[in-house]
Amino acid sequence: MPKLVLVRHGQSDWNEKNLFTGWVDCKLSETGRKEAKRAGELLEEAGIKLDIVHTSKLSRAIQTADIALEAADQLWIPVKRSWRLNERHYGALQGLDKANTLEKYGKEKFQTWRRSFDVPPPPIAPDAEYSQVGERRYDDIDPACIPLTESLKLVIDRLLPYWQDEIAGDLLEGKVVLIAAHGNSLRALVKHLDNISDEEIAGLNIPTGIPLVYELDEKLKPTKPAYYLDPEAAEAGAAAVAAQGQKK
Amino acid sequence: MPKLVLVRHGQSDWNEKNLFTGWVDCKLSETGRKEAKRAGELLEEAGIKLDIVHTSKLSRAIQTADIALEAADQLWIPVKRSWRLNERHYGALQGLDKANTLEKYGKEKFQTWRRSFDVPPPPIAPDAEYSQVGERRYDDIDPACIPLTESLKLVIDRLLPYWQDEIAGDLLEGKVVLIAAHGNSLRALVKHLDNISDEEIAGLNIPTGIPLVYELDEKLKPTKPAYYLDPEAAEAGAAAVAAQGQKK
Repeated sequence: MPKLVLVRHGQSDWNEKNLFTGWVDCKLSETGRKEAKRAGELLEEAGIKLDIVHTSKLSRAIQTADIALEAADQLWIPVKRSWRLNERHYGALQGLDKANTLEKYGKEKFQTWRRSFDVPPPPIAPDAEYSQVGERRYDDIDPACIPLTESLKLVIDRLLPYWQDEIAGDLLEGKVVLIAAHGNSLRALVKHLDNISDEEIAGLNIPTGIPLVYELDEKLKPTKPAYYLDPEAAEAGAAAVAAQGQKK
Repeated sequence: MPKLVLVRHGQSDWNEKNLFTGWVDCKLSETGRKEAKRAGELLEEAGIKLDIVHTSKLSRAIQTADIALEAADQLWIPVKRSWRLNERHYGALQGLDKANTLEKYGKEKFQTWRRSFDVPPPPIAPDAEYSQVGERRYDDIDPACIPLTESLKLVIDRLLPYWQDEIAGDLLEGKVVLIAAHGNSLRALVKHLDNISDEEIAGLNIPTGIPLVYELDEKLKPTKPAYYLDPEAAEAGAAAVAAQGQKK
């Protein structure tokens, strides 16, 4: 039976500083490394034997996969990377302090940009410091694919082709698949898998560093509700994510 | 112009204990992690921009690649793994102390097993503690491929198909390729690239953690002698490898 495990990367040095990150390639903080290690230990304790790992092209997701696989003693698992699993591009907000942004634009705009389904933040200038236009990392894709901003809807649009062509194929072969990615790319995927409405997805928060397991049927529909490997920690983690941005 | 960079993993916890390792999946020691980081820093300082990474299926080579790529800020590079890049299988010697083995069997046999081109050590029993028969890591290959012992000649025989079909293809596309592997799988490759005789290869020692760079022509022949990114450290490192096994 196909099994899919999702893990959201832990704290990055920019999360720590409360900055909007998006496609900016910040690295895991020490706390984030510990979260990744814990994720690997949870996989090991649950006896989950992976067959393949998919990551985004961003370092913090890759570090999470590397550290978790090391902790689970499964470093040798094949790995694929795709920009389609990247975090949501936060447009002109990338690099800005969350608390300052909240203060400057007000709670309504702030919450709209963070949580609305289809309203993207203002686009980043292609030549801005935190734009990814021209970055070598994306030399293998059509330059037109590099976003200047994204809503969650746009994330779903660019994520689904990778789900359909790559991840689904692995699952249909009966593989146990790990995806190491980001808050919003994983929300996009969970929305698809659990058939969550455009309205309800706003309230869904995925905690960091705690593997979320889907058991799927041969049509890739969940046979039961997805479950976290550490439900108690997951609940606390989701609440912490929901509170983000309210910090001063 | 195709460019190939080889890096031998640094000290593992079994190297530290002076045990024969081969296909046993020991991890890097703290020293080995530092060596891997240094390898990445050397890549960064040399301005080498990788396009793809190949590793063996053994953790110590994978850890070396992961840590080096992190240090070089190129974690997002695609990576492929193959058992064909694994260390030489040391047969029944796997798990034995090198100094004890030298004492028990005498210098001649010991040196023959370590350095002869085509005399493998005695085979390991398939059900022995340090045999790899039945290991999940190799579930994707013909079980008959899992060796019970190997000479350097046998390593070349099983490595070349991967060179020919995978690595050569990447190089011929003009990619900059990193291989993170082991003392003997890299000796096998260097023998092939530099056309070293069966006799002379015995004297070749590859130091750990120092990238070795080949610049190749369109027929994948070196256009000049391969060079280490830190030649001084490489010389000292090669001498240290040559002295291995003499330790008590």
